[in-house]
Amino acid sequence: MAIVQVSIVPLGTKTTSLSKYVARSLKVLQSQKSVAFRLTPMGTVLEGDLDKVLNMVRQMHESVFGEGVQRVVTIVNIDDRRDKRATMESKISSVESKLRRG
Amino acid sequence: MAIVQVSIVPLGTKTTSLSKYVARSLKVLQSQKSVAFRLTPMGTVLEGDLDKVLNMVRQMHESVFGEGVQRVVTIVNIDDRRDKRATMESKISSVESKLRRG
Amino acid sequence: MAIVQVSIVPLGTKTTSLSKYVARSLKVLQSQKSVAFRLTPMGTVLEGDLDKVLNMVRQMHESVFGEGVQRVVTIVNIDDRRDKRATMESKISSVESKLRRG
Amino acid sequence: MAIVQVSIVPLGTKTTSLSKYVARSLKVLQSQKSVAFRLTPMGTVLEGDLDKVLNMVRQMHESVFGEGVQRVVTIVNIDDRRDKRATMESKISSVESKLRRG
Repeated sequence: MAIVQVSIVPLGTKTTSLSKYVARSLKVLQSQKSVAFRLTPMGTVLEGDLDKVLNMVRQMHESVFGEGVQRVVTIVNIDDRRDKRATMESKISSVESKLRRG
Repeated sequence: MAIVQVSIVPLGTKTTSLSKYVARSLKVLQSQKSVAFRLTPMGTVLEGDLDKVLNMVRQMHESVFGEGVQRVVTIVNIDDRRDKRATMESKISSVESKLRRG
Repeated sequence: MAIVQVSIVPLGTKTTSLSKYVARSLKVLQSQKSVAFRLTPMGTVLEGDLDKVLNMVRQMHESVFGEGVQRVVTIVNIDDRRDKRATMESKISSVESKLRRG
Repeated sequence: MAIVQVSIVPLGTKTTSLSKYVARSLKVLQSQKSVAFRLTPMGTVLEGDLDKVLNMVRQMHESVFGEGVQRVVTIVNIDDRRDKRATMESKISSVESKLRRG
């Protein structure tokens, strides 16, 4: 199971707003069940089988083209851990428990 | 006001766990008031005046050295918008409102 | 045609050196002909059809596991331009010509 | 000594071309001597004392604002190694020597 963040930036859009494009890429995720996801202020975090996740990332990237968008920069950060099962939740709670212990 | 994500990866740590190091970098943030922050599954998101935020990022990066850590890879994504005030909250709610409208 | 940078960081390797793992991921690229590539100080840049490139990135990521490596962080930056043909060379020469003109 | 890659993406520029903005950020580097740099297809790689390098990154980011640019996304990857002196050249030659040895 992998945790992957994706941030998609269309270029030459005439507007500084990105939310329309982020929303479009999230609709790709809402139409399926095998990859969990969470929107954060700097991207969307996906969790699931790495090949399924990367397939979603590819579709999210594609969804931003069209309606005048001809260049897209997409940043993908993959965290792939195979010695134990890590989830979006467990990564955060593991840090928080260490913070509490001081 | 800028929104900045920072992800810190120490190398050669003998362990696949990162939470101890992330916790250490978060203590830097907990000791101050001028930069808001939020822990996400793939990094920490900071919000505030860009120079103050980058000063925090520099201190977070430094905090991971020591106790045997001799090499650190830090990934910083800066989103600096000057035409309107954007916050971590407003970025997410702007996407969510577009999703609801379809 | 897309230009994609990939940087692969194995965790918990007991050593601060990464070159062995980078070399392993480059062998994946040397064994094929459809994706061009160039090693830079901070990653490997690939150029070609986006799906072929992403297939290579997936194989490069996989190549670093094994021999004790159980967690890998991979950073992928995709620059996908569809209004004109851009290459690794043309991107650099375009900047350099603007620098010369002042 | 640190090696740092910076990639700067202005948003809402009406054009898909980035080279004008990259050239502007490189002029910041050409006006100084303490930080070495190299242009690559996906960003500019800087080498030097970490604080000096980050100061340059801050100035490069700033240089892209103005003339209608109101939002800039900047991606910074820091590789900070303190157990031995690594340079842009030594990182690449270390990988290449491992590739030759098989």
